[in-house]
Amino acid sequence: MNFASDNAYGAAPQILAALSAANNGTETSYGEDAVTARVTGKLTALFEHAIAVFPVVTGTAANSLALATLCPPYGAVFCHRESHIAVDECAAPEFFTGGAKLVHLDGEDGKITPAAIAAMLPHYARGVHSPKPAVVSITQASEVGTIYSVAEIRAIADAAHNSGMTLHMDGARFANALVTLGCTPAEMTWKAGVDALSFGATKNGALCAEAVIFFDTAHTQAFEYRRKKAGHLVSKMRFISAQLDAYLENDLWLSNARRANALARRLGDGLAALPGVTLAGPVEANGVFAWMPKPVAARLRERGAKFYDWAQEPERVMVRLVVSFATPEADVAKFIETAKG
Amino acid sequence: MNFASDNAYGAAPQILAALSAANNGTETSYGEDAVTARVTGKLTALFEHAIAVFPVVTGTAANSLALATLCPPYGAVFCHRESHIAVDECAAPEFFTGGAKLVHLDGEDGKITPAAIAAMLPHYARGVHSPKPAVVSITQASEVGTIYSVAEIRAIADAAHNSGMTLHMDGARFANALVTLGCTPAEMTWKAGVDALSFGATKNGALCAEAVIFFDTAHTQAFEYRRKKAGHLVSKMRFISAQLDAYLENDLWLSNARRANALARRLGDGLAALPGVTLAGPVEANGVFAWMPKPVAARLRERGAKFYDWAQEPERVMVRLVVSFATPEADVAKFIETAKG
Amino acid sequence: MNFASDNAYGAAPQILAALSAANNGTETSYGEDAVTARVTGKLTALFEHAIAVFPVVTGTAANSLALATLCPPYGAVFCHRESHIAVDECAAPEFFTGGAKLVHLDGEDGKITPAAIAAMLPHYARGVHSPKPAVVSITQASEVGTIYSVAEIRAIADAAHNSGMTLHMDGARFANALVTLGCTPAEMTWKAGVDALSFGATKNGALCAEAVIFFDTAHTQAFEYRRKKAGHLVSKMRFISAQLDAYLENDLWLSNARRANALARRLGDGLAALPGVTLAGPVEANGVFAWMPKPVAARLRERGAKFYDWAQEPERVMVRLVVSFATPEADVAKFIETAKG
Amino acid sequence: MNFASDNAYGAAPQILAALSAANNGTETSYGEDAVTARVTGKLTALFEHAIAVFPVVTGTAANSLALATLCPPYGAVFCHRESHIAVDECAAPEFFTGGAKLVHLDGEDGKITPAAIAAMLPHYARGVHSPKPAVVSITQASEVGTIYSVAEIRAIADAAHNSGMTLHMDGARFANALVTLGCTPAEMTWKAGVDALSFGATKNGALCAEAVIFFDTAHTQAFEYRRKKAGHLVSKMRFISAQLDAYLENDLWLSNARRANALARRLGDGLAALPGVTLAGPVEANGVFAWMPKPVAARLRERGAKFYDWAQEPERVMVRLVVSFATPEADVAKFIETAKG
Repeated sequence: MNFASDNAYGAAPQILAALSAANNGTETSYGEDAVTARVTGKLTALFEHAIAVFPVVTGTAANSLALATLCPPYGAVFCHRESHIAVDECAAPEFFTGGAKLVHLDGEDGKITPAAIAAMLPHYARGVHSPKPAVVSITQASEVGTIYSVAEIRAIADAAHNSGMTLHMDGARFANALVTLGCTPAEMTWKAGVDALSFGATKNGALCAEAVIFFDTAHTQAFEYRRKKAGHLVSKMRFISAQLDAYLENDLWLSNARRANALARRLGDGLAALPGVTLAGPVEANGVFAWMPKPVAARLRERGAKFYDWAQEPERVMVRLVVSFATPEADVAKFIETAKG
Repeated sequence: MNFASDNAYGAAPQILAALSAANNGTETSYGEDAVTARVTGKLTALFEHAIAVFPVVTGTAANSLALATLCPPYGAVFCHRESHIAVDECAAPEFFTGGAKLVHLDGEDGKITPAAIAAMLPHYARGVHSPKPAVVSITQASEVGTIYSVAEIRAIADAAHNSGMTLHMDGARFANALVTLGCTPAEMTWKAGVDALSFGATKNGALCAEAVIFFDTAHTQAFEYRRKKAGHLVSKMRFISAQLDAYLENDLWLSNARRANALARRLGDGLAALPGVTLAGPVEANGVFAWMPKPVAARLRERGAKFYDWAQEPERVMVRLVVSFATPEADVAKFIETAKG
Repeated sequence: MNFASDNAYGAAPQILAALSAANNGTETSYGEDAVTARVTGKLTALFEHAIAVFPVVTGTAANSLALATLCPPYGAVFCHRESHIAVDECAAPEFFTGGAKLVHLDGEDGKITPAAIAAMLPHYARGVHSPKPAVVSITQASEVGTIYSVAEIRAIADAAHNSGMTLHMDGARFANALVTLGCTPAEMTWKAGVDALSFGATKNGALCAEAVIFFDTAHTQAFEYRRKKAGHLVSKMRFISAQLDAYLENDLWLSNARRANALARRLGDGLAALPGVTLAGPVEANGVFAWMPKPVAARLRERGAKFYDWAQEPERVMVRLVVSFATPEADVAKFIETAKG
Repeated sequence: MNFASDNAYGAAPQILAALSAANNGTETSYGEDAVTARVTGKLTALFEHAIAVFPVVTGTAANSLALATLCPPYGAVFCHRESHIAVDECAAPEFFTGGAKLVHLDGEDGKITPAAIAAMLPHYARGVHSPKPAVVSITQASEVGTIYSVAEIRAIADAAHNSGMTLHMDGARFANALVTLGCTPAEMTWKAGVDALSFGATKNGALCAEAVIFFDTAHTQAFEYRRKKAGHLVSKMRFISAQLDAYLENDLWLSNARRANALARRLGDGLAALPGVTLAGPVEANGVFAWMPKPVAARLRERGAKFYDWAQEPERVMVRLVVSFATPEADVAKFIETAKG
C-alpha cells in the first residue's frame, strides 16, 4: 500500500522493452539519433504544431531549463505558492535563471487565477527596483490533484500575455490532466495560450524521461545551449528518447493515466464514504487529499500503508495519497478497508 | 566501422538486464532506495575508503557538480588546455560554480605537470584581482588517450595541496586507465592524493550513469543540495544506480575496458605498420590518434568509417579513433585493411 | 517639502569637505590606503570587537555581498515580507548568492519574530527538496520606521543560531535606530548575536558609502574576493572611506540621526493631532507612516509636497514620509500646516 | 615618483568642485535627476548618436555589466590574453554573465586582430559543446599602452559582426587613446563598428565614475535591470553624474589625457636615451613599458619611485610606468635623472 508518490513505482514494461529495442548498433550521440527524431515527429503530430522538443531526465531540469529560457536573470516568475517549482525543487529555477524571483500567488485548490496575477502585478511595476514580470507558470494537474479547465488556462494566458509575460505549464502529470479534460494536447496547451510545456513521463511510467516543448521554435538555440551547459544533454540520448517513444506508442501514456485516475477516484470515493473522513478537494487526477482522524492514519501506517501528511489539526490530519499507473487495485481496496477499521 | 566516439555504442546487455531486475515493486525515491545503498557499499569496498557517492546521469554533470562543490565562485580550476571541462562542456563548470575561471595549462600528451602548475601560480597570486587557485583537475585517461602514472598523480596532488588546492579527477574513462596501470582504484585515487572523482560508466557500457565520489565525506551535504538544485537528482534513482550496480558486478567494468583497450592497441599497431601512417601518441587506453595521408582518411570514410579529424596539416590529417567496449573485432580488422588500401 | 526618501537630500557638508581633504597626493589603490585603515580602526573601536570592514557604495551591494558570504547557493534567507532585500533590490541577493531563496516572513510593524522563524522552519526541513535555512536578516530600523529592541534582536539571534543559521542586520538606517535605543553599537549588534551588518551611511549624510562589517573575521577572504568579482572594489577607495571617516568623526552620524528622528517625531505628533489622520505605527526612527483622507494627501501634493503612498483604502491613504538629516525644519511645520488645511 | 597606477592619484579639482555644486537641494534618486540627464545630453552630443548611457562607479562593473547585456550565459567573449577583463577583474565577467567563457587571444602589442579571431572561431563552431561566440572585446588604450587605429577597430568590428558577434570596447583610458588618434569619439566607436563602450573617467581624474554606453538603445531595459540587480545603481546618482559632467566640461577629459600622454612620451624618450634601457613597445597613451638593468630598477625604488615589474629576465626587468593627469612634471624629470644614475 504505497501511496507516497507516483515515483515510488518503477517503469512500465513497454518502456523497459523499448530500451532493449533501442540498444541496437551505433547511433550519433547527443540527440542526433533516429529515436529522438522519431519522438520529435510523434510529439509534433500529437500537438498539431511546429514545436521544439528536448528530452531531459528530470522534471526539475525540464522546469528550470524552460523557465531560464523564458525569463531573464532580472525577471520574475509568477506561480502558485505550493507549486513544485516554488517549494520542491530547492530553488532550482533561481539557479538556472541566474537569480530570477519566484513570486508566490495564493489560490484555491492549488490553482492561480487571472485575478491573483492582476493583484500582484502592481507590486512589480516599480521599475528596476523589482524584478520584471516575465513568466507565469501553472501546474497541470496541480500539486493538490486539481485541474485547470481549458477556459481557465486561456484566461491565465491572456492575463500573462497582456502583461508582457509568457505562460509555462509544468506538466509533470500532463497525461492525468488531459484524460480528465478529454480534450486534445493542442487544446490544453498552445490553443489555450501556453508558450512552453514540461511534458512529464517519469511519474506516469518512464524511468527518467521528460520533454521540454516550446510552441515557438525560436527558443531552440538558447535551450539547446542551456541544456548542454547544465549537464542535461545525455550522450546516449536514444535511451531517453526511447522511453518517450514507447510512452507515446499505442497511447500508453493515456491508458496509464486513465488507470491511475480511475483508481484515485475509487480511492477517494471509498474514503469519502467513511465516517470522519472528508476529501480536502476534488479528485480530478491521480491524487487524493483527505482529512481523517489521526487514529485512522496511524492504523493505516501500522498496516504498512505509506503516504505523506499534508496538514495537521489537533484531532485530524490531511493525508496525500498518490496513485500511480502501476498501483495494484488490491492496494486501493485494502487501504479503504483498513481505513474503515 | 564507427570509431567516432565510445558514446556511439549502446549499453552492455548485463546493464540493460539490471534495469528490468530493478523494476520490481515500490522503492523510496530520490536515492533512498536499496539499489543505491548497494552501489554505495560496492564502491566503498572497491575504493577501500569511506566515501560519499552520488549517481548522476552525465559526465558534464559529474564534473561540474564536483568542481562547484570544491571551488568557490571566486576560485580558479587549473586544467589541461584540451581537457573535456575546458573545451567540451559549453563552460558548464563556469555556470555551476557561479563564475569560477578555468585556467588552461599546456602539457605534452594531454597531461599537465607540477611544473606547469608552478609556472601558472604566480599569475594567480595577486590578491583579489585574480581568482583564487582552488582546484586542479586531471583527466584519467586523458582526452588523447594517455594515462597518468600513479607517481605522476601523486606529484600533481602534492603540487595542488601545497598550494592550498584540491585535486579532482575526471574519470570518464577511469576503467580504461585502471586496467592499463594494473593498480587498485584506491592507488589511482585517494592513495595518490585525489580528493574527488568523476567515476564514469556511460562510455564503458552504461546507458546514462556516472558517480561522483568524494574521499572526504564532509562534502556530502553541499553536494546533495547542489545536485538537487541543478535538476540532477533523479526521482527513480534505482534505475541509475542499477546501471552502476551491474557495471561493477563480476568486474564487468574491467572486462569491458580491457576489451576496448586491447582492440585499440590492435588498431594502433595495425595502423602504425602502414606506410605514411604515424601514431600521434602512445595508445594507453581506448583511443588511437594517428596521422595519415588525407587520401587514406578519405577512402576510409568512403567505405563507411566514422571518426573525427583532430588536427590538420597540408598533406595529412590526425584522426581520432575511439574503440568502445562493444566495437566489433571485425571492424578493427576492416579499418586496418581499408587503410592499407 | 520633499519627504519621498532620505536619498532625496544630498551630502553633509563635513563629508563633502572630507573628500577634498582626502584628495592629497598619491595613495595605494583598492583599499590599501591610509584613510581606509583609519576607518577600520574607528569602527573597530566603536564596535569594541575585532571586525572585518569593507566599504562599498550602495546598500544593495552591502546586503547582497554580506548575504552571499553567509549563505550558500542552496541556502535560504529568512526575512520580513516587506524588507528591502525582499522587495526593493530587484532580487539582487538571489543573483549574488547564485540562486538562494528569500523566504518571506510576516510580522507586525515590519519586524519578524522568533515565532515566525519557528513556524517557517518545518517547511524547510525536508532535505534537499527545499533550500537549507542559512541566514536570518533583519532591518534596523525597519522599512516601516520601527526598531527592534536589543532583547528582540537577542531572541531572533538565538532562534537563528539554534537552527544553524546566522544573523544579518540591514542597517541602512543603523544610526537612526541606535540613537533611539540609546545603547552602544556593540549592544545592538554582536552582543545581541548579530553576525554581519550592513552599516549604512548614504541615507544619513554620505554621498555613496556603506560598510559591510563581519564580527567574525574568518569571512575576510571570501568577502574580499566577492566584492572584487562583483565590481564593488573601488580603485580610489580613499574617497569612499573618507566619507565614512567624516561620518564617524565628532559623532556626525549620531547627531544627523538624532536630528532626523526628532523632526520625524515632530511631524508624526503634528499629524496625529489632526482630525482624520492616524499614525499607522509608532514613529521610532526617521519615517512616519500616516493614514490621511485622500483630499488631504491631494492638497499636500498640490502645494508641492513629495511622498509615496504606501497603502490604499477607499476613503483614505497611508503615506510614507521620510525625514532626512537635512530636511529643513520649516518643511516639517509647513507640511503639518498644509495638512491642517 | 609614483608611477604604479593612474589610480594612485586623486581627483581633478574641477571634479571635486562639481560635487559641491551638485549638493544643492533635493533630487529624485536612482538616476532620475537633472545632473544625470545633463550628462546624457552631453555624451549624446559628443558621440553624435542616439545612445543609452549608464553611470557606474568602477571599470569592472562597467565592463561586466556591458558584457552581460551583450553575451548570453552560454556565450563566449573573445579578448586579448592580457586584457583587464581576462586577468584583472577576478573573473567578474564570468560572474555577471552567469558563466560565459572568456576566450584568450594572443596578439602583438596588447592588441587582437581579425586573423586571431578567425583562427579561434573554428574551435567554437562545434554546436552546443562549446560556448557560442557572442562578443569581441578590445581595450582602447590597451593594457600595454598601445592604441588601435580606427582602421584596426573597423576591421575587428567587421570580423565580429560577420560572425554574429558584437564589439565591446573597454575604454578605461578612452581619452588617452582619443587624443593620440586625434579623431572624434564617434569615429573611434560606432562609426568604426563598436556596439558598446565602457567610457572611463576614474583613471583620468574622477573619484569613481565610468559610463556604459550602448549605441543601440534597445539594450536600455536589460542594462538598467542588471545594474540594479548587481547593486550598481547608486541612490544619490547626482554625485556620480556630477563627476562625469565636470569631466566633460571645457574638455577637461581631453586636456587631462593630453597632459598625461605628453608626460609619458617625455618619460619614454628620456628613458630610451639611457644606455641599457629599451622601450618594450611604443608609447601611445599614458603608459611606458621599458626594459632596464635590474640595478637601475633597484636604485629607482631606493629613491622612492613606485612602479610594477611586468616581466623578468636574468639581467634586466621590464617595468610598467603609468603617468596620470596629475603626475608632477618634476617627478618625470627626477625619474629619468635617477635612472641615469
